[in-house]
Amino acid sequence: MAGNSFGSIFKLTTFGESHGEAIGGVIDGCPAGLKLDFEAIETEMNRRKPGQSAIVTQRKEPDTVQFLSGIFEGITTGTPIGFIIVNANQKSKDYSHIKDTYRPSHADYTYDKKYGIRDHRGGGRSSARETACRVAAGAIAKQLLKEIKITAYVSGVGELKLEKDYSELDFSEIEKNPVRCADPAMAAQMETYIKEIRKQGDTVGGMVTCVIQNVPVGLGEPVFDKLHAELGKAMLSINAVKGFEYGSGFEGTQLKGSQHNDLFNEDGSTTTNHSGGIQGGISNGEDIYFNVAFKPVATLMQKQETINSEGEKVEMEGKGRHDPCVVPRAVPIVEAMAALVLADFWLLNKNAKL
Amino acid sequence: MAGNSFGSIFKLTTFGESHGEAIGGVIDGCPAGLKLDFEAIETEMNRRKPGQSAIVTQRKEPDTVQFLSGIFEGITTGTPIGFIIVNANQKSKDYSHIKDTYRPSHADYTYDKKYGIRDHRGGGRSSARETACRVAAGAIAKQLLKEIKITAYVSGVGELKLEKDYSELDFSEIEKNPVRCADPAMAAQMETYIKEIRKQGDTVGGMVTCVIQNVPVGLGEPVFDKLHAELGKAMLSINAVKGFEYGSGFEGTQLKGSQHNDLFNEDGSTTTNHSGGIQGGISNGEDIYFNVAFKPVATLMQKQETINSEGEKVEMEGKGRHDPCVVPRAVPIVEAMAALVLADFWLLNKNAKL
Amino acid sequence: MAGNSFGSIFKLTTFGESHGEAIGGVIDGCPAGLKLDFEAIETEMNRRKPGQSAIVTQRKEPDTVQFLSGIFEGITTGTPIGFIIVNANQKSKDYSHIKDTYRPSHADYTYDKKYGIRDHRGGGRSSARETACRVAAGAIAKQLLKEIKITAYVSGVGELKLEKDYSELDFSEIEKNPVRCADPAMAAQMETYIKEIRKQGDTVGGMVTCVIQNVPVGLGEPVFDKLHAELGKAMLSINAVKGFEYGSGFEGTQLKGSQHNDLFNEDGSTTTNHSGGIQGGISNGEDIYFNVAFKPVATLMQKQETINSEGEKVEMEGKGRHDPCVVPRAVPIVEAMAALVLADFWLLNKNAKL
Amino acid sequence: MAGNSFGSIFKLTTFGESHGEAIGGVIDGCPAGLKLDFEAIETEMNRRKPGQSAIVTQRKEPDTVQFLSGIFEGITTGTPIGFIIVNANQKSKDYSHIKDTYRPSHADYTYDKKYGIRDHRGGGRSSARETACRVAAGAIAKQLLKEIKITAYVSGVGELKLEKDYSELDFSEIEKNPVRCADPAMAAQMETYIKEIRKQGDTVGGMVTCVIQNVPVGLGEPVFDKLHAELGKAMLSINAVKGFEYGSGFEGTQLKGSQHNDLFNEDGSTTTNHSGGIQGGISNGEDIYFNVAFKPVATLMQKQETINSEGEKVEMEGKGRHDPCVVPRAVPIVEAMAALVLADFWLLNKNAKL
Repeated sequence: MAGNSFGSIFKLTTFGESHGEAIGGVIDGCPAGLKLDFEAIETEMNRRKPGQSAIVTQRKEPDTVQFLSGIFEGITTGTPIGFIIVNANQKSKDYSHIKDTYRPSHADYTYDKKYGIRDHRGGGRSSARETACRVAAGAIAKQLLKEIKITAYVSGVGELKLEKDYSELDFSEIEKNPVRCADPAMAAQMETYIKEIRKQGDTVGGMVTCVIQNVPVGLGEPVFDKLHAELGKAMLSINAVKGFEYGSGFEGTQLKGSQHNDLFNEDGSTTTNHSGGIQGGISNGEDIYFNVAFKPVATLMQKQETINSEGEKVEMEGKGRHDPCVVPRAVPIVEAMAALVLADFWLLNKNAKL
Repeated sequence: MAGNSFGSIFKLTTFGESHGEAIGGVIDGCPAGLKLDFEAIETEMNRRKPGQSAIVTQRKEPDTVQFLSGIFEGITTGTPIGFIIVNANQKSKDYSHIKDTYRPSHADYTYDKKYGIRDHRGGGRSSARETACRVAAGAIAKQLLKEIKITAYVSGVGELKLEKDYSELDFSEIEKNPVRCADPAMAAQMETYIKEIRKQGDTVGGMVTCVIQNVPVGLGEPVFDKLHAELGKAMLSINAVKGFEYGSGFEGTQLKGSQHNDLFNEDGSTTTNHSGGIQGGISNGEDIYFNVAFKPVATLMQKQETINSEGEKVEMEGKGRHDPCVVPRAVPIVEAMAALVLADFWLLNKNAKL
Repeated sequence: MAGNSFGSIFKLTTFGESHGEAIGGVIDGCPAGLKLDFEAIETEMNRRKPGQSAIVTQRKEPDTVQFLSGIFEGITTGTPIGFIIVNANQKSKDYSHIKDTYRPSHADYTYDKKYGIRDHRGGGRSSARETACRVAAGAIAKQLLKEIKITAYVSGVGELKLEKDYSELDFSEIEKNPVRCADPAMAAQMETYIKEIRKQGDTVGGMVTCVIQNVPVGLGEPVFDKLHAELGKAMLSINAVKGFEYGSGFEGTQLKGSQHNDLFNEDGSTTTNHSGGIQGGISNGEDIYFNVAFKPVATLMQKQETINSEGEKVEMEGKGRHDPCVVPRAVPIVEAMAALVLADFWLLNKNAKL
Repeated sequence: MAGNSFGSIFKLTTFGESHGEAIGGVIDGCPAGLKLDFEAIETEMNRRKPGQSAIVTQRKEPDTVQFLSGIFEGITTGTPIGFIIVNANQKSKDYSHIKDTYRPSHADYTYDKKYGIRDHRGGGRSSARETACRVAAGAIAKQLLKEIKITAYVSGVGELKLEKDYSELDFSEIEKNPVRCADPAMAAQMETYIKEIRKQGDTVGGMVTCVIQNVPVGLGEPVFDKLHAELGKAMLSINAVKGFEYGSGFEGTQLKGSQHNDLFNEDGSTTTNHSGGIQGGISNGEDIYFNVAFKPVATLMQKQETINSEGEKVEMEGKGRHDPCVVPRAVPIVEAMAALVLADFWLLNKNAKL
């Protein structure tokens, strides 16, 4: 109810502020009998963690997940999986300048007004540090969904847009460049651009595309919990996300039905896939694909005018170590949230029919 | 869990197939003491109902809401509001040709695979007829949110796009034309275009923009139930929706932080509103605005090749009475879903602080 | 949230006041493919309905369930099952005397204080008429749980207590007498006693025992949603219930561990069953049995002193047609609620392990 | 869904096995602005902890709660309160003898059958150690409910029953004796009896009574989430509980309506309180009181015959350090669960009416 849980059967609850002692979470509803690959979990954590390359924030955080329960001799027991990630490298003093100041386009003002109090250090609960818990849980969800393949990549940085369809791309390129763009040439351009932006003390937005393959037919619960509606909510709940479209998306609004309809092959597959793998909120077995829009990071290494909690004009400048562009580190988060959605619907679907 | 409920405190559960005896719903959690304006509810129903103009489906359905409970002498009692809408004008025979046929880009195939059985008549549960229940409930939510003003309008039909910002538009124009476009000149073009499309036996997609004004600061529950995440889910749960963006949306991905950040005025308002009225998932008091993308209607009055449940190729052609473009009738549905989201968060927010 | 839904996967939401147009409900999450036996549903409804014998209220209500959705050609489709039960025989005038009066030990006062308004006619939402919806839904849950046998019977009326263990009783006797006591001799005594009580214009409490057989091992979700905890909640949510005990119950508090422990046979069954078929909140395959305590009906055909909404002392006397003792009609309600609990846990348990 | 969360708005999720690294929980939905009294929390933890007196288990566990989030400078921030309690003193070897053995009347067998795997050490998730998290959360709930006074005490140990009504007792006596019986003379008898039982290597059941005073009128959500139904579920979810009754309870079944009805005083209070402070599932402002039945602890310091996971007969004897009677340590758990229920309904009730 207060918004810190996600999912119905496979359910993640997270807690923690960026500069408290630890962040963490509880996964309730993971079936018993899943042998966990802890290395795979660590790999996902490393894809998200700060300091991984020259184009992301240079904060050093190990982001080690400590599992406290729900696992016995490496296998899930069906009881809740509690875990924490210690906040090892908080430099809380970096934030003393924002104690009474509302940073533009941050959540300082809204948290203060909603709750009457806020932990200002590093954004507190509104910090994207919370997404580390999502990645940890998503890594387990991925292992549950053995057959399903979830792949995200950067498809836009500022005005640089990867126009190729996902089917033209070689996904094995994604992790070979720090931008996580599936096209090496575009990746190089994006990397150069992000470095420029950082030099300017500025930031830039971007886009992540996600493709989900080998999805069984039948996932998604009409009418309100349509598969794409939950995917959309999942993505929009990630920090800095401003938009979500799947299948033909916003461009599809310009098409005629005679262009847009996906005709059937005899085996139930379709000749085109404007639908994006979902019909009536239920997966149809075709690839699911969607785009997620991220706004530019609000913390600039430039002077900005803003107000303090007294409503007085003050000048401020970002301190600390921040990302000039979030999308490279957002890639594993998008995948994690997609995995959480699919795991939940996969379990729910066991009860669709007798 | 099975997906037919929406909301947490102000919660709507709907039921019903398009050609069953009736559709209906239950609103649980509407506070007691709300004097209902039944005429206003009827007005909303009429904005959605078929047959209202020359550019929508010519089916005749009165869509009268019968309230069965939860209201005493015109005032809500705090107990659940049950209601039904009788399916008066079902021509079930119109659908006998699709009994064993999967219509392209409809949910026939996915329902059949998920449930092993389906009520094929008029799409059954997957029919957009279900949205009548949302409009009824949304009309009550609107009355609960007295101060908040929710306005949607058509901003795109096929390639015709209304490029003006909402602030340049006169909302009183919206209900004056059958397209529900806020710009009279564009409305006329859209109307002509939809008529052409219909003559071709084709359909076309479109876009709806929604603006929410006078929102109190503080609505939305971080971190998973962010205000825009729930709005996104709400919109994506509407039939035919392919995308959602709020504030700067997909265009915002191309901006720099120095362009995108909304600077504060001394009273806490902002000089620009790229944020779309929401920071960190919480309303900040500025206008909330978002776009919703609708694909073209899948039922065409043309011959299409498809398959039957045996996997054999068959030819089919739409029968019955269908919309060439859904967006004019989607406007009240978008508003209704927005109202449901806001009503829920408004009630939830009463417990944000002591 | 507002309390009108029960269950998580197999979920019933009810609505309706005793003297509104209709009561009804929505069952969401019933798997597709269940062929319904409508006669069996009617049988359950008849076991609960007023006027069925000389010792219950003489109101005449047909209590016919009209299913509006979720069923196609007699088979569930996986979509929500909406239903209504028309309030055919309301004599609302019978209740004009309580419009501004708070009946002793009724919910008039608390509803008024909580909601600031109430539909006083027949108790409105607080009337046990609502339980008709539970019986309808429970009848479907029973059909889902084909193998599981749920049997309730009256085990106490006032000071008359059936001391025999359930294993000594012949359940086929239950429906042969109007009290629904499994022991014919005791049934006769109870019937005589209830008639006497009615002549006095008084009422009396009673007890219902329920036995659930052929339960698979593994139902129930620790730690908060233990099987007996949900059964307890289910029973306590029935009007007039004051207590719940299962297995050794309150008497078990007086035993030593060496007396109470149920020793295992080699096949995992137990030699005794003080546990009542549940260990750690999970069914162990033994019979589940529990007792439910009902207070005497509060409406008396005698003069009582009470207060009105102005806080003034007034005298009142029950009008209308009321039960002198609720337990005979409570038997099918107890079974229905037990069925709802088990159906939900049965579906949930499909995801306990891989 | 998987049963490890309790509450709707004020919601506790717990995790952890008795012999894992730590147990813990997340409280979501505690309003911001509550200044916490950490000493009061510790006091509650100490009332539950092992080793506190000669008549409870002699295990030594400090049971210190480490709060990880949701609190800033001693005040709740409205974000989730995550906490852990380290399992400092696990002697896991004590349990190697039960690795493949099903202890009689424990949850070993049912966990194994349900999940196919279990952490056998100390009962794993089924251990009452989990209740430490409930006490921590309940201590915060109590602070939220400033005006409401929740008092539990032992009212039965084996055949020793405290027959006095709560109104005749001096609650300040409760914490003065290790049994937590409100009557000093009876407390002494109970203490002696428990010591005897322990000498025999046996255990004994008991009863806890709870009284809630100063409850505002209006708490509880009809019809399924009646205040007493949630209290019942809360109590029945505590380890070893076999029964719950409130107000007149099981004895009330023997009364006539003319004896049982609580007549009103002019101020809306009642002359008697058979109702136990609740009408129609809603608090009426009178004292709420209820009894909770606990079975004898299943771990005996005697030889018992049982089976192993192969279905072979084996002999076993309890090792480790166990309680001869749980009720003294159950008193703070009963209070904690009552506080969680009331806190949730208190917040929910803010939206009962406009």
